[in-house]
Amino acid sequence: MPYDTVLTNARLADGRAGAFIAIEVGRIVGIGADTPPPAATTIDLAGDLVLPGLTDGHMHLDKTLFGLPWWPHAAEPYRMSRIETDARVLPALPLGTAERAGELIRRCVAHGTAQIRTHADIRPEFGLAALEGVLAAKAAHAHACTVQVVAFPQAGVMRVPGTAALLDDAMRAGADLVGGIDPCEIDRDPKGQLDAIFAIAERHGKGVDIHLHEPAEMGLFSLQEICARVRAHGMQGQVTISHGFCLGGVAESRQKAAAAMMADAGVSLVTHGAGGATLPPLGVLREAGVQVFCGNDDVRDTWSPYGTADMLERAAIIDWRIDWRTDPLLHDLFDMVSGDGARALGIPEHGIDAGKPATLFTLPAETIPEAIGQHPRRRLVLFAGRVVARDGAWVA
Amino acid sequence: MPYDTVLTNARLADGRAGAFIAIEVGRIVGIGADTPPPAATTIDLAGDLVLPGLTDGHMHLDKTLFGLPWWPHAAEPYRMSRIETDARVLPALPLGTAERAGELIRRCVAHGTAQIRTHADIRPEFGLAALEGVLAAKAAHAHACTVQVVAFPQAGVMRVPGTAALLDDAMRAGADLVGGIDPCEIDRDPKGQLDAIFAIAERHGKGVDIHLHEPAEMGLFSLQEICARVRAHGMQGQVTISHGFCLGGVAESRQKAAAAMMADAGVSLVTHGAGGATLPPLGVLREAGVQVFCGNDDVRDTWSPYGTADMLERAAIIDWRIDWRTDPLLHDLFDMVSGDGARALGIPEHGIDAGKPATLFTLPAETIPEAIGQHPRRRLVLFAGRVVARDGAWVA
Repeated sequence: MPYDTVLTNARLADGRAGAFIAIEVGRIVGIGADTPPPAATTIDLAGDLVLPGLTDGHMHLDKTLFGLPWWPHAAEPYRMSRIETDARVLPALPLGTAERAGELIRRCVAHGTAQIRTHADIRPEFGLAALEGVLAAKAAHAHACTVQVVAFPQAGVMRVPGTAALLDDAMRAGADLVGGIDPCEIDRDPKGQLDAIFAIAERHGKGVDIHLHEPAEMGLFSLQEICARVRAHGMQGQVTISHGFCLGGVAESRQKAAAAMMADAGVSLVTHGAGGATLPPLGVLREAGVQVFCGNDDVRDTWSPYGTADMLERAAIIDWRIDWRTDPLLHDLFDMVSGDGARALGIPEHGIDAGKPATLFTLPAETIPEAIGQHPRRRLVLFAGRVVARDGAWVA
Repeated sequence: MPYDTVLTNARLADGRAGAFIAIEVGRIVGIGADTPPPAATTIDLAGDLVLPGLTDGHMHLDKTLFGLPWWPHAAEPYRMSRIETDARVLPALPLGTAERAGELIRRCVAHGTAQIRTHADIRPEFGLAALEGVLAAKAAHAHACTVQVVAFPQAGVMRVPGTAALLDDAMRAGADLVGGIDPCEIDRDPKGQLDAIFAIAERHGKGVDIHLHEPAEMGLFSLQEICARVRAHGMQGQVTISHGFCLGGVAESRQKAAAAMMADAGVSLVTHGAGGATLPPLGVLREAGVQVFCGNDDVRDTWSPYGTADMLERAAIIDWRIDWRTDPLLHDLFDMVSGDGARALGIPEHGIDAGKPATLFTLPAETIPEAIGQHPRRRLVLFAGRVVARDGAWVA
């Protein structure tokens, strides 16, 4: 009896060439090197490399300007200006959140991204509108991508009355995690913010993902307070720090101590490579047992004019900053943009193995290091066995 | 009488849409918005943006591994190991310098690069072989790209006897500039190296481009010594510092003083965005009157597994580090990867203007900021009026 789909003439990450991958009811049921079995649909990959779906662990789907004509940046060059300008610009855009988020999700999928963690702004000016737009886009694309949503208090919690209650509403409305932001630098009340968001998370049995841009010792203090609450609430494995620039701005002995603390508390880190800020020591964190994964952060949005949604390009940029030059290190980096991220997002089944969902993509490259370094156009993208993109464009 | 070529339905950087560009004997002879004139060849750009040829101001064409199967990185994770490993690996590669350099030049051209400054290793183990390979590739591609070559003493000058004499030979053999490298950190004799290379440069009436990776005050010392020699030799406008990481590692007042010194000495800076090192303050340098331009540096070579030869992607990476978010700043950044680089390389005629060579490319974008942020595939590339690449692939 023929399989649903068989991919033939595939190159696998372990170097095997001319392999086939048999897919049945959305799952990989066989991988082999001999004659491909019959199938309802046979796709010749022409020697392309096959890799498992990518994970974008940090996005802002609600802020993107994709779908609109070119929209020049409107804020002053500092974070609080971008926060304030968003309140004016986002609700007035001629294309709504669901539509813009959908445009970006489709681009992510076309680049081979299979799972996304996105933040959605929660602030009184917006109510739950941004969250609802993102949840609508999530639902509309559920056949092509898994989207996890963080209720993100972009403007702070304590400094904007009503935000904590709105975060609570957001969790009831379907957000997957509670967010937070710079409890000292933005919110001026670390105890207030962290007590509030951990209480909300515990009440709903959900995790936490906090934006921590705070530099050096300020950020390290906030990080320690986060880890303390994780232990107090028994939330090991459910809390992520986004960015954690502070870890790149303190002495090496302080970095090691912080890494050990995070590992002990089961707190993960997601990075986009830190841009102009200090980058956490990714190798030191991993060696200590901290789960590190990656994300694109801003993709052509109200905060940044750049960003392509391509996690392989993101890996190349991060590699350029950390200089992991050897093949084994590049394999580690690939894990950080794929399987490690999937695990951090709580998606258990990831990989090109029999029994796993056929969620994968192909591209003209010989090896994983080349796939990262050159990040050529993705030829074919499958999600649970269904073709969702071809030649860099959404088709689902 | 019809023109050689007319490009129609073009979007120009100033926002005009539906424009035509008339080309005759390799030069732009007219740009207009009304009915396009007749031509031997008419190419409909379908609304694509037209931009002037890009400049890659810092490459190592001799080190690239393009043209070969995947070649894993072979050195230990420090600079001297890469220098020593190159001596073993480069001469033993199954594809020669001219062939590999040619592969990379063609990729640069396909990304819209029209002018390149490359370094070519000069060390006794190689003699002039690497230089000759690069010069051969330069000649073979002269119809599609301008290539300027720096005789680069990768392993040092004073620490490797015979190198100074070889640099002199290299200038006679056709190198365009004399190179140098970290006169303290690598060569352990700043006076020795700098006296030697400036003497060679003066003897041949050529400029200098020195790799300066040295951090903080060490690098600032070397930078001061370079500027002093520029003034002493009257070589204002002929000397470039490559990288200049030190400028990002000293106090702001020291940065400003160094910028003023460089501007006074007419010393330019070329950057690839600094990777994991400290980035010079590009805005401060420009405000002081220093010419700043950009380059890709390593592109899939014996030093780095990453690098795509795309100067628009390079601009996006640099933008991500410096966060020039507004449209005017992105226009400045575009100049740094195109016209400013051309001027630094001594190529006077650059731009989309009547009278200039028709050296340009097209891509699906509305504006320069979008072209940088998204860096989509280049649709058409012309060099002096000749089509040299289409849809991201060399055709010349």
